[in-house]
Amino acid sequence: MTPYLLTPGPLTTSARTKESMLRDWGSWDGDFNQITARLREGLLRIVHGEGTHECVPLQGSGTFAVEAAIGTLVPRNGHVLVPVNGAYCQRIAKICKVLGRKLTTFEYAEDAQVRPEDIDRLLAKDPSITHVALVHCETSTGILNPLHEIALVAQKHGKGLIVDAMSSFGALEIDARRTPFDAVIAASGKCLEGVPGIGFVLARREALQASEGNCHSLAMDLYDQWVYMGKTTQWRFTPPTHVVAALDSALTQYFEEGGLAARGGAYQRNCKALVEGMAKLGLRSFLPPEIQAPIIVTFHAPDDPKYEFKQFYNAVKARGYILYPGKLTTVETFRVGCMGQLGERGMEGAVEAVRDVLHAMGIRTQAAEAVL
Amino acid sequence: MTPYLLTPGPLTTSARTKESMLRDWGSWDGDFNQITARLREGLLRIVHGEGTHECVPLQGSGTFAVEAAIGTLVPRNGHVLVPVNGAYCQRIAKICKVLGRKLTTFEYAEDAQVRPEDIDRLLAKDPSITHVALVHCETSTGILNPLHEIALVAQKHGKGLIVDAMSSFGALEIDARRTPFDAVIAASGKCLEGVPGIGFVLARREALQASEGNCHSLAMDLYDQWVYMGKTTQWRFTPPTHVVAALDSALTQYFEEGGLAARGGAYQRNCKALVEGMAKLGLRSFLPPEIQAPIIVTFHAPDDPKYEFKQFYNAVKARGYILYPGKLTTVETFRVGCMGQLGERGMEGAVEAVRDVLHAMGIRTQAAEAVL
Ligand SMILES: Cc1ncc(COP(=O)(O)O)c(C=O)c1O
Ligand SMILES: Cc1ncc(COP(=O)(O)O)c(C=O)c1O
Repeated sequence: MTPYLLTPGPLTTSARTKESMLRDWGSWDGDFNQITARLREGLLRIVHGEGTHECVPLQGSGTFAVEAAIGTLVPRNGHVLVPVNGAYCQRIAKICKVLGRKLTTFEYAEDAQVRPEDIDRLLAKDPSITHVALVHCETSTGILNPLHEIALVAQKHGKGLIVDAMSSFGALEIDARRTPFDAVIAASGKCLEGVPGIGFVLARREALQASEGNCHSLAMDLYDQWVYMGKTTQWRFTPPTHVVAALDSALTQYFEEGGLAARGGAYQRNCKALVEGMAKLGLRSFLPPEIQAPIIVTFHAPDDPKYEFKQFYNAVKARGYILYPGKLTTVETFRVGCMGQLGERGMEGAVEAVRDVLHAMGIRTQAAEAVL
Repeated sequence: MTPYLLTPGPLTTSARTKESMLRDWGSWDGDFNQITARLREGLLRIVHGEGTHECVPLQGSGTFAVEAAIGTLVPRNGHVLVPVNGAYCQRIAKICKVLGRKLTTFEYAEDAQVRPEDIDRLLAKDPSITHVALVHCETSTGILNPLHEIALVAQKHGKGLIVDAMSSFGALEIDARRTPFDAVIAASGKCLEGVPGIGFVLARREALQASEGNCHSLAMDLYDQWVYMGKTTQWRFTPPTHVVAALDSALTQYFEEGGLAARGGAYQRNCKALVEGMAKLGLRSFLPPEIQAPIIVTFHAPDDPKYEFKQFYNAVKARGYILYPGKLTTVETFRVGCMGQLGERGMEGAVEAVRDVLHAMGIRTQAAEAVL
């Protein structure tokens, strides 16, 4: 049996989503163009951006879409403020450097949320800043940043906001009617539970309209992609047709199941079952629950010399679940995702697999004696 | 029934290739890393580049890989000579412009091959040129450019050669042992008959080693992608796992069926059956046979007022085949691909569909009276 993927993506997708890839489409053909149109409209609907925003999909992984958004929406003489509390914030900073966009970073500890009052102060201090780039859920730890509050601060100062919502989009609310942003970026293989291979940017129409000629790249130029799609209903360059069809199918299922409320609710339940179940095994989560997004949870590794990640990983995999390594440099951790299809036994099945492995490896945790 | 795709890609893939997408992989997991390793090794084998060249796959469409190759392998102060006999040559020129690489173009008619003696003269005249960028099969018409001869000229002058072999790779011979190049670029959804979603660059190792820091983009930096893959066996950013698995499966089938000789032979037979069959219907191909690559054929549209491409296209589609529009500005044409799975009736089935449609639409061609 294929193990369930408890990772930040790719996730375990439904059989129906995978089966949607069992045919080939002509990328110039009307049948396929209808899929693209339906997809763009559905993605826009999730943020209530109809009429005000535009959905521009892009070939490649999520990082390609983030780079495309920065490159397209931030003018060459723009200046980006990036609050940093994890690896994906750092990646945005790196993109700004490579693209030659002026950059200011503001660093937090990895277990501290970005604070709106800091953004307020920083924007007041340096009026040359044109954009704030925020990671919504910092997947490297699982921390949730206060998007809505920061969006209001950026708006107050008249600055553009670019949001990497890769691991939150579709599960955590982002409502364009009340939360102002220039761009929200996500990808096919995360909370929407498609297969990986495209990203997309939901951009404020005026911001997009003003972005002609900014981009450092031909392939990543979201302005060109948008104009071309508008004219032709086609992608500028060959789309990954099967990935697009899978996302379309996944999105249909998403709406059938109840949309954001249902998806977010399911992940919330997964997260609760995970954190509580692991706590019973003596495995402590790295973040306090108030700032934990219900997307991926970082756990401290057991404090026992018999623990070794690779061995632990392989044993849990043999029991049907794929975990993810930690990304912190200071403490030893591992991560468990709350997204995707988890099968009949749900998150409880995963917790049991971890329990059995700890037992088999003879690993002692704080609470291990009491439970095992 | 899904129509067969007679396009420059995406193509109709085998059932086995599509079925390989019916599971999910963790992109960090060893099982998936083995697929990546096998794929890279197989792609390198096709050009006999083992030991001298490196395969660097990249997320996105073929254009992403072309841009990545130019951006990574041509230094910022480099100078690229682009001989132009079609739209994909023009696209390379556009990429050079957007990336700020110095560019010299040399224009041909769309039915004329690039001539090695022109390249020789141009390189002799301007020693500041560092690279030649050539399209092997110019898919906009189907013309074949003399890669081997041009490679020898570039080598004689000590210049790097970057080859867009998107629509020829795997079907037309490119042998790194006798044809010197810095990079050959192709993609998953063409002659290898995978599904679209990744490109790859087969780069000469020394050229790649010397390319650190050149790239204008984070996501498209082939040097970084290569170094990271070497260290970790993983992709730098989330790979389109299903697309990768499908290409791996397609490649296994490719080798099982006899590799390049078999694939090239099949396309050659398809091309012959197509050109001869269409000639019998009075439909003339745009290129003379000597310079026609067995990949995609451009046909003159019937010279009859009753002909209208969209209607013709839809009627042929209803009979099970998807054609492709022409890309020439001066003459009205349409294109028919010779690649991919064509079903039991092969190319003859496609020619019959065209015949029936011409008949049903009451379109007269030069030879139509004799044949119908
Ligand atoms: C918040 C965030 N940003 C960016 C990315 C990068 O996405 P990709 O790996 O698809 O390039 C991820 C991936 O997990 C992410 O979680
Ligand atoms: C010669 C050539 N170069 C580049 C491309 C661009 O590839 P893509 O559409 O995948 O970006 C194509 C696509 O058909 C091609 O035939």
